[in-house]
Amino acid sequence: MTRVIGFIGLGNMGEPMVMNLLKAGFQVKVYNRTPEKTKAVVEAGAEQVNRPADAAAPGGIVITMVANDQAVEELVLGPNGFGEVLGQGGIHLSMSTIAPATSRKLAAYHQEHGSQYVASPVFGRPEAAAAQKLNILSSGSSVAKERVKSIQEALGQRVFDVGEEPESANVIKLGGNFMIMAAMEAMAEAFNLAEKNGIDRQLAAEIYASTLFNCTVYQGYGQMIANKQFEPAGFQLALGLKDCNLVLEEANSTQTPMPLAGLLHNRLLASVAKNRGNQDWAALARIALEEAGLE
Amino acid sequence: MTRVIGFIGLGNMGEPMVMNLLKAGFQVKVYNRTPEKTKAVVEAGAEQVNRPADAAAPGGIVITMVANDQAVEELVLGPNGFGEVLGQGGIHLSMSTIAPATSRKLAAYHQEHGSQYVASPVFGRPEAAAAQKLNILSSGSSVAKERVKSIQEALGQRVFDVGEEPESANVIKLGGNFMIMAAMEAMAEAFNLAEKNGIDRQLAAEIYASTLFNCTVYQGYGQMIANKQFEPAGFQLALGLKDCNLVLEEANSTQTPMPLAGLLHNRLLASVAKNRGNQDWAALARIALEEAGLE
Amino acid sequence: MTRVIGFIGLGNMGEPMVMNLLKAGFQVKVYNRTPEKTKAVVEAGAEQVNRPADAAAPGGIVITMVANDQAVEELVLGPNGFGEVLGQGGIHLSMSTIAPATSRKLAAYHQEHGSQYVASPVFGRPEAAAAQKLNILSSGSSVAKERVKSIQEALGQRVFDVGEEPESANVIKLGGNFMIMAAMEAMAEAFNLAEKNGIDRQLAAEIYASTLFNCTVYQGYGQMIANKQFEPAGFQLALGLKDCNLVLEEANSTQTPMPLAGLLHNRLLASVAKNRGNQDWAALARIALEEAGLE
Amino acid sequence: MTRVIGFIGLGNMGEPMVMNLLKAGFQVKVYNRTPEKTKAVVEAGAEQVNRPADAAAPGGIVITMVANDQAVEELVLGPNGFGEVLGQGGIHLSMSTIAPATSRKLAAYHQEHGSQYVASPVFGRPEAAAAQKLNILSSGSSVAKERVKSIQEALGQRVFDVGEEPESANVIKLGGNFMIMAAMEAMAEAFNLAEKNGIDRQLAAEIYASTLFNCTVYQGYGQMIANKQFEPAGFQLALGLKDCNLVLEEANSTQTPMPLAGLLHNRLLASVAKNRGNQDWAALARIALEEAGLE
Repeated sequence: MTRVIGFIGLGNMGEPMVMNLLKAGFQVKVYNRTPEKTKAVVEAGAEQVNRPADAAAPGGIVITMVANDQAVEELVLGPNGFGEVLGQGGIHLSMSTIAPATSRKLAAYHQEHGSQYVASPVFGRPEAAAAQKLNILSSGSSVAKERVKSIQEALGQRVFDVGEEPESANVIKLGGNFMIMAAMEAMAEAFNLAEKNGIDRQLAAEIYASTLFNCTVYQGYGQMIANKQFEPAGFQLALGLKDCNLVLEEANSTQTPMPLAGLLHNRLLASVAKNRGNQDWAALARIALEEAGLE
Repeated sequence: MTRVIGFIGLGNMGEPMVMNLLKAGFQVKVYNRTPEKTKAVVEAGAEQVNRPADAAAPGGIVITMVANDQAVEELVLGPNGFGEVLGQGGIHLSMSTIAPATSRKLAAYHQEHGSQYVASPVFGRPEAAAAQKLNILSSGSSVAKERVKSIQEALGQRVFDVGEEPESANVIKLGGNFMIMAAMEAMAEAFNLAEKNGIDRQLAAEIYASTLFNCTVYQGYGQMIANKQFEPAGFQLALGLKDCNLVLEEANSTQTPMPLAGLLHNRLLASVAKNRGNQDWAALARIALEEAGLE
Repeated sequence: MTRVIGFIGLGNMGEPMVMNLLKAGFQVKVYNRTPEKTKAVVEAGAEQVNRPADAAAPGGIVITMVANDQAVEELVLGPNGFGEVLGQGGIHLSMSTIAPATSRKLAAYHQEHGSQYVASPVFGRPEAAAAQKLNILSSGSSVAKERVKSIQEALGQRVFDVGEEPESANVIKLGGNFMIMAAMEAMAEAFNLAEKNGIDRQLAAEIYASTLFNCTVYQGYGQMIANKQFEPAGFQLALGLKDCNLVLEEANSTQTPMPLAGLLHNRLLASVAKNRGNQDWAALARIALEEAGLE
Repeated sequence: MTRVIGFIGLGNMGEPMVMNLLKAGFQVKVYNRTPEKTKAVVEAGAEQVNRPADAAAPGGIVITMVANDQAVEELVLGPNGFGEVLGQGGIHLSMSTIAPATSRKLAAYHQEHGSQYVASPVFGRPEAAAAQKLNILSSGSSVAKERVKSIQEALGQRVFDVGEEPESANVIKLGGNFMIMAAMEAMAEAFNLAEKNGIDRQLAAEIYASTLFNCTVYQGYGQMIANKQFEPAGFQLALGLKDCNLVLEEANSTQTPMPLAGLLHNRLLASVAKNRGNQDWAALARIALEEAGLE
């Protein structure tokens, strides 16, 4: 069994994930564009390499956990990319939130080169990553998914097999982000209705989050929306808009009308036009607040 | 302490509620328009009366749990209504889902007659009522709320004090129903996107309901929407439309723009125009299914 | 042929309409709540009366052109109302923009009293009224419509027979106002897209209004929206919201989903929440401007 | 003055346009992918060429009037393209409805090669083209616009100068198509409201089109929507969806929230999902019809 793996991307998510891999007994070769960020994991036993290509070994496994589609593509296909190194039997375990189309493209590339691609985005914030509580989606060929399973299990609480198509896990991830945004807009409107009727927003938020909607999305974002407090950003609104655009592109190409996604897009785009791209994506609630004259 | 109370409305919710009141040691005088429906509770010890007025005693407490605003109004104000019986110190504990405006009107009536009004709609289905697991909202004067608290505690797992205004509990209840409908539309669109991408709807539903959205609204309605199975109706779509209209009226009168509520209204109204008023309100998802060509 | 008619409501529309009736040779008895407003028409030959009832004669015709539904109802049904005076053969020619439901109610009242009701709202502003250029809708019994036709022809350029149902003319009038608001929102979004692309809004407005949309709605409101100039109000936004609510109520009661009307309602309600009820209804465009960061 | 011009694209629009150029005394070299379609114009005096490149002369003018962005790009940049032939002083007069981004790209290409690009989409159908009644938009450098003006005047009734930016005319054209679709949705909902109230749709359409909205968009499409008759297609719905996507992309990239465009996109996408892409774009009204239970 492969115990040496490459890991690229030492951001808020990547660092605790590498820590868990080390704890589980894996040897991890890490690469990050800004090398300083590897410090903590190197002290914990990871080996730093200087080029993406060096994170890979022929027939080995490389995990990517980076900011966006372009970054993933460059790590694989660009100069010093690891794509050509992997070769026969190699696996690219792609854990960033990216477009289904990007997964299709990368999967095709790997197939041409004898390697395999597993899309594996996650649900969970950095705290969940540190606590090994991520929920991990996984799509790709059965053989490849089987080989990476012990790795995924070292990173999260549960692994969901979303099928053979390379992009399926990305579709589910995007759908989840869409549903979070829908929940935020619903709370925004419901809390506004409460406030306009003289009811404390916090009280409304607490009631909903401890009865009908006692799950973390409503509990966490409910607090932000009730308090009208959208900084610091856990997940930037500009990234939420990017994901919403990906949802709508996928909806368009598969002929799936999604009017609620359209409404959310409008909220997010207006927010960016008002220079709120750096606030938490829950700040989409500010448009409803403004429309109600509550800001 | 008052141990004799009146209870009007022996439907799916009312019957198990009366059972719990009897179990808690209350004496209960029950009235139902269709007298046969009182059979089970009378066997369990309740006393049947023949007119709404007879469910009340001067200075006593009467609970209403009936279908709609008009029914509640008639029970209080109509011929043989209990409104004039209650008198000084009497309390009307109004547990149906009704319009805030109706609560304001009834509260004013009671105030004129020396009695008091507590709005107290609940979150929970008949099973929850039977298991004493209802979540109970409560708004009205502090004195009145204090006096009915032991009754509410006999009926549910938790009581939420929503303030002094008579209609506040109704506003929170309507907001909750709005949020449920928003969650259903979000699931409908997300599951359609999954299906259009070749992903099993059931799998999508299971993933969301066991990760981001592990709460009963998503788990229960997620199953119906994934299975495209909207009968038998737990809560009829026509009633969902009624509640959505109440939300929009309240939004209109308090100048609270709620575009998501508008979108949901459109889904529900189209459903009724297509003769689906008797299906479960989750059937609002069928409009998205049809738009996507998935029915 | 009846040459004596009553006319109630001497506002911006009523005054020029009475002038045209006098010019056409009718004798006109005028009533206005604020008596001073009758001055000009009295100088031109109208006879002022002191109570609504005095504007009517048994078997005669009374025109109402007042602010809202409540005012019309009071003129007919209230103390000193003209409803009971008209009697057999009398006609109420109701030219205000009111709810279909109000027309149904008044028509039923008249039927009970032997008189008849013709709903006859108009398209056109005060300038059009003065120039005898109104477009006049007409619904009610054929006999009654025939009898008021010469009056309508004295007031406008064309009369449209909308059928026998008393409220049909009101439905068409509301639909027209809805379509105007839809055109305004469309222009708002299109002009914003132009401005964001560095194109002069005025130029955009001029091109559309002289090619695809060379009709007065686009020409007049296009100027206001291009100039972002919404005062003074020709027709107040608060009245636009009232009409939009009537549209949505009618849509709801007839099970006609109108998502575009819902979108417009949201714009108007937000405008009122921002204290713009006194601006021209074209100010609904300001919400799109704000969302785009263009104000 | 240049009297020899190239014209590429002999579809429903191109043919009558070439006829008018010939009538105005221009010599026209025509190219069409399917050569048979040039027959009528060749008989009328045009010269047929066999490659796009042969339609151009150094320093000359070439008009493109083809189906989509890709076709225009290939004509300029592809094998046998005319891009390299034009050279110093040459002008590409681009009259198709294409994306602003495509115009920017082609303008940049021409600038590199010493030639110039004028975006010049038109408002008008084949009948208008034949009658020399097109309304013609024009954006690009002043010098180039001046040189093509006599050509444009031979093709239409009026030329609108939209500025120096190469894509401005395309933005205005897309905005116009968006406004047409908005008018169609508004009519669909208003006519449904009329029908649901027992009013003849045709009558409603006639009233609006002869009063408030007496312009061709409402007159022509109003007939189709009133009659529920969407074939044969004057302009295919699938092309309307393409344009709506271009509008939303431009809105997205310029941060211009356009919720009405979003609503229309939803209608069009649902229509395509229901296999109506080949019907007239007015068939977007069928979604509202179905939602109202009127089909």
